[in-house]
This record gives sequence, C-alpha cells and structure tokens, in this order.
Amino acid sequence: MLLEKLNWRYATKKMDPAKSVPEDKVERIVEAARLAPTSSGLQPFQVLVVTNKEIREKIRPVAWDQAQITDCSHLLVFAAWDNYTVERINMMFDLVNDERGFKNEGWEAYRQKLLAAYPNRPAEQNFEHAARQSYIALGLACAAAAFEGVDATPMEGFDPAAVDEILGLREKGLRSVTILPLGYRAAEGDWLVNLKKVRRSRDNFVIDVK
Amino acid sequence: MLLEKLNWRYATKKMDPAKSVPEDKVERIVEAARLAPTSSGLQPFQVLVVTNKEIREKIRPVAWDQAQITDCSHLLVFAAWDNYTVERINMMFDLVNDERGFKNEGWEAYRQKLLAAYPNRPAEQNFEHAARQSYIALGLACAAAAFEGVDATPMEGFDPAAVDEILGLREKGLRSVTILPLGYRAAEGDWLVNLKKVRRSRDNFVIDVK
Repeated sequence: MLLEKLNWRYATKKMDPAKSVPEDKVERIVEAARLAPTSSGLQPFQVLVVTNKEIREKIRPVAWDQAQITDCSHLLVFAAWDNYTVERINMMFDLVNDERGFKNEGWEAYRQKLLAAYPNRPAEQNFEHAARQSYIALGLACAAAAFEGVDATPMEGFDPAAVDEILGLREKGLRSVTILPLGYRAAEGDWLVNLKKVRRSRDNFVIDVK
Repeated sequence: MLLEKLNWRYATKKMDPAKSVPEDKVERIVEAARLAPTSSGLQPFQVLVVTNKEIREKIRPVAWDQAQITDCSHLLVFAAWDNYTVERINMMFDLVNDERGFKNEGWEAYRQKLLAAYPNRPAEQNFEHAARQSYIALGLACAAAAFEGVDATPMEGFDPAAVDEILGLREKGLRSVTILPLGYRAAEGDWLVNLKKVRRSRDNFVIDVK
C-alpha cells in the first residue's frame, strides 16, 4: 500500500493553478509531518503553510522561478530551529512530562545530558542536526500527499536566506531548509509525468551483511 | 491509513531476540527507502542490511550498548556518500538515460550544472547534503515498517567512525549516518511501549501564512 503510493508520486513539474487542495487533505499531510520521529523527540522544526499568493510570488524568483510555487495552492516550508537552546530543550521535556502526567527519572537524566551537550555546541552544528530531522518529516509529508492523491514537489532549489527574509524566519529562530508545493498536476505541461521513475537497482542500493 | 500507522509506531526500546522479521517484510521496508525522493534523484546513500550477529555484537558497544542492536533480527544502516564525485553524478544521470531509453537536452544541461557545482565543493559539505537525503529514506523505512507491523527504532546514538570501521564503509566511500533495528517488541521489558506519544500541538508546530 505504501509502496504503491511511493510509486505513484513524482516530483510534479507543472501544477494546475485553477485547482486547490482541500483543507482536510492539507491538514492530514501536515499531521504526517507532525508525527515524524525525530532525534530525542525534539521536533526541532516548524512547518509553514503558505497560501498567501503575494508571498508565494515573492518566493518564486528566489527559487529558480519554479512555477509550482505559485501554481500550487499550499506551499509548505520546512524551517529548522537555528540552534538548540536550554529553553527549547526544556520546552519539549516539560511537554512530555505534562502530557504523560508524571516525571520519569531516566527521562530527567536524559534531559540533563542534552542540556549539558547541545546548547554548548556551535549554532551551525545544532542547526545542521535540526535540519536533518526536518527531512524525515519532508519524506512523510510526501508520502501523506500521495495517500491523499495530492501532487507535491520536494525542493531544495531556493535561496534559504532570501526565503527566511520574506517569511521573517530569522527573528523566530528558524531557518528554511526545504519547501513542498502541494497541488494538482497539469499533466499536459509536465515533461516528467509520463517518464519512468528511475532508482538504482536493489543490488546497487543495498549491501547485505550476512 | 498512513496517520494510523504513524500513530502505531514508536521507538521500540526492547525487542524480543527470539523473533525474526520475515525476509519479504524486510524487502518491502528496504524498497520504501529505495523509492525515497532525493535531491536531483541522486540517491546519495546505501542501505546496509546487517543480519550477521557477530558484527551486530561489535556495533552495540559503540552505540551506547543499546540492546535493540543485537535483539533485532535485521539492523539497517543508512550510509551516505562521503562526497559527490563526477563518477557518481554521471552514474545516476546515465542510469536515468538508460532506463528511459533516450537523452533529454534539459536533463543533460542539468547534469552539467551539477558537475560544475558539486565536485568542487568541500567533501564535508557534500557529505552533509547526502546525509540529509538519507533521512528522507529513514523516515519512509520507519513508515514502511509500521505498515508491515514491524517494530523499529531509528537511532543516531552511535559513534559513526567506529561503525564505519566495523563495516568497512570508508573504503566504499560511505559514512554511516543513522541505524534502524527491525524486530518485534518485547512489551514486558519496554518502558516506552505504554506511554503516550507526545508531539507539539498543531498550533505550536504549524505557522499559517494566509
């Protein structure tokens, strides 16, 4: 079932600007990103759901003029924490305690371990670690879109500093990492839609250590 | 359906060493990783499927002695390319041409663009970019495991240099990034199995830009 959906999806090159993704579908796609596993459960990123047309028109020129950014109905922006701080780590550990209704000794020891390690590392190292986690959510959002019959185009091809500026991300302590337009393919204008999906063969991709 | 599976899964803390994941399930989990979207379609990583018990016993002490590494039946290791080289980029572009049976002018121009950019960047920058892609596959493998009713524990908590040494990865031009034990929960010994999954609320996780 999942494999069928992963085979269905492709990086849509041309979307139909007249079609809009229903809100309940968008919410389920965002929910898949929210449920993504992340290192120590920190969820060190936010997802922006950009429907504002003017803002998407500003993003397009700093993203190689890719038309999906304005032809989609919803542009997801995955923005990672710019750093791990004491406040952010405590926020997640406190949330876990609140939700579970008790304190756990092992969990508190683990909190102290992260508090001793992460905030002292360079911000760039922490951002990079946070950015990696956001790719797990990006992948699950792509899968979720396929389950909804929604087309999506995962993109790294944009100027992150410019997108941060347009969306005011730096003052929120965030940095854009990937963007994911959601919409519906305009098959007649899409050079990729009918081409075979190509992946390395199982033998080329997997190493068995028996 | 996907959301139900993502809610079912959790980072299994104790696996039953007496239970083995059937090969057809492992293959479908690996297939989800193989189908993961990646930047420019380069698939810049390999997945190792480690069943060898002695090797897993060597990895466990360099991975915080986490018991899942030896209690699982299959240990997946996601190992990213240590660098983008001319050979690797050409390998993927040639494969696409072979599989599709024709050359495309736009695609060839894109090949030249990557050849002009990637191999000249520092290896560490290229590795980091490749490592990020491997998290997309890690996330999809976690989802695929849930669809198979297989427990899995995504882990970063290990010494990558030591794992690279044990598996001989550096001489293959690879560097370990994450590991994913696959097995079946031993619920009676797992402190996490009955605890609530905690994520930031939708309002805390999403920023709507309308």
